[in-house]
Amino acid sequence: MKRGCKYGTHRVIEPKEVLPQPAIKIDNDMNIYDNEILIDVCALNIDSASFTQIEEACDHDIEKIKQMILDIVNERGKMQNPVTGSGGMLIGVVERLGDKLRGKIDLKEGDKIATLVSLSLTPLRIDEIIDIKPEIDRVEIKGKAILFESGIYAVLPEDMEETLALAALDVAGAPAQTANLVKKGDTVLILGAAGKSGMLCCYEARKRVGEKGKVIGLVRDQKSKDFLDKTNFCHDVIVADAQNSSQVLSEVLKVNNNEEVDICINCVNVPNTEMSSILPVKDEGIVYFFSMATSFTKAALGAEGVGKDVTMIIGNGYTKGHADVTIQDLRECETLRNIFKELYV
Amino acid sequence: MKRGCKYGTHRVIEPKEVLPQPAIKIDNDMNIYDNEILIDVCALNIDSASFTQIEEACDHDIEKIKQMILDIVNERGKMQNPVTGSGGMLIGVVERLGDKLRGKIDLKEGDKIATLVSLSLTPLRIDEIIDIKPEIDRVEIKGKAILFESGIYAVLPEDMEETLALAALDVAGAPAQTANLVKKGDTVLILGAAGKSGMLCCYEARKRVGEKGKVIGLVRDQKSKDFLDKTNFCHDVIVADAQNSSQVLSEVLKVNNNEEVDICINCVNVPNTEMSSILPVKDEGIVYFFSMATSFTKAALGAEGVGKDVTMIIGNGYTKGHADVTIQDLRECETLRNIFKELYV
Repeated sequence: MKRGCKYGTHRVIEPKEVLPQPAIKIDNDMNIYDNEILIDVCALNIDSASFTQIEEACDHDIEKIKQMILDIVNERGKMQNPVTGSGGMLIGVVERLGDKLRGKIDLKEGDKIATLVSLSLTPLRIDEIIDIKPEIDRVEIKGKAILFESGIYAVLPEDMEETLALAALDVAGAPAQTANLVKKGDTVLILGAAGKSGMLCCYEARKRVGEKGKVIGLVRDQKSKDFLDKTNFCHDVIVADAQNSSQVLSEVLKVNNNEEVDICINCVNVPNTEMSSILPVKDEGIVYFFSMATSFTKAALGAEGVGKDVTMIIGNGYTKGHADVTIQDLRECETLRNIFKELYV
Repeated sequence: MKRGCKYGTHRVIEPKEVLPQPAIKIDNDMNIYDNEILIDVCALNIDSASFTQIEEACDHDIEKIKQMILDIVNERGKMQNPVTGSGGMLIGVVERLGDKLRGKIDLKEGDKIATLVSLSLTPLRIDEIIDIKPEIDRVEIKGKAILFESGIYAVLPEDMEETLALAALDVAGAPAQTANLVKKGDTVLILGAAGKSGMLCCYEARKRVGEKGKVIGLVRDQKSKDFLDKTNFCHDVIVADAQNSSQVLSEVLKVNNNEEVDICINCVNVPNTEMSSILPVKDEGIVYFFSMATSFTKAALGAEGVGKDVTMIIGNGYTKGHADVTIQDLRECETLRNIFKELYV
């Protein structure tokens, strides 16, 4: 077997010298390199923006959609929508591990996995499209795909519906990073605490802070507070406008003996919440920005402007074992499972 | 003395419930609260964008410029340009410390300081404008100002020209954060290594890594390499395009025994260098983004896309003792001092 680059650059055909994601054509030959994983694919979950574009371009005609997907994959060697640039994820069974990976990773042939890297960089060959389920952007196929050494994945649990696991894996980075960051005795503030990733972070933080620590969830209205209070994931739930930093600061101090918190985790989905995350944190504390609406410059200049010596971290959707942490949360907590089934499956 | 809010919200007049920076009018009464510092001001360094706007609005007429500055400060209680929103910094002598701060901070009455928080949030009263030096955006005045408890400042060293100290204080956060992050034995990559903050970071990193560590500076062309090689701040200087992540990765691996680095510090001033900062770093390593051109989403999604378990930190212009670290670098290193005098004073 040949030795490949861990990021898959050995499969880039055009243009040269780029990574597989920006490439417009990659090699989908299914003879694997020694650091690749061959997957027998059963389904593609197409990215919602991509699927919508394809549906509309094909007038919602299933046969035309099938042909368009086949054409894209035949041309590019991967399922990357040329208009949106986006991909999606796939579900399949591990068929073969490259020699270099065998015994070195927690995966064996026969495992059913979901890939957590985008289809927009994953070598794919479709032999047959079996069915398309437009209501869930799902394409059932016979085909093969390749995961690079740097590619991330989750083994699908056997004790849980696939749809439930997939809904949680979508935001697996946030609770796993919370698990890494939060220590016994910490006081943790979570903005956007009633959302999907916020709730998982609250649950993880509560597990980690122990008896002397405290989890404070911030939500935007009384309805969300009532909902979150019932879960018992937080010691205190406060209602404030995450875009109003003075209000956030004063509400946090009120429930925390007038003291600043050790860690703030930002899971909101609106812009202009940087100062609300920075102000309530004590010097040498940590601000973890998981919100994709975060502005780098607002955070950097904001902390300097108020002389806050805090460490501000850019949320990384990946950390070692992130899928396991999240699946385990769902497995052990019935409340969480029921909420996810009701809201996200 | 009355007790004030550490961020100065007690001085906000209009609109209510905001921090002093976004406020349009703040209270510049010079009777201080118990956590404030009264400064006898000798000069304002107006932000370059602000000064240019004022000069043009006044047809470069010095008397008109004086009047416009007086009008702004009388109306707002601070020197915040209503068009650009920006401020600048001031230089003065500590006249009085609030009771709560006395003995608690490293400042005494009579110290000459530069404030490192913006004039756009600093209560200021101008009694007389003595002179204006348009070529360096400087306004010499008689007047008073107030620094809040959260306000940051640097005591100006007596053994160094004021202009030299000010040039370095401008980027003091970067070398001070480098000093905090880098440990003995680390391999450190610095992007934009020949720039003002990059050079200071190289120098600091070299001091910290010890004999077994390594500092690799990345610059964009041979001329910059020749310049940086001469300083001896780096063990290796490599030439690559910081926007080409494959090239950066391969050049770094070449000089580092094919191994990834522990820490990357990004000091470049162009966009699209996130992947070049992430790819060369080993798992569980650190990427420190000091570049204001960093995109939060490109960093977050980029690391996830290549399955990199790295901690990505948003550069904070402030950390405890940052001014001292930087002034000390200039004091102890003649090479650095000469370069700064030649290029930045």
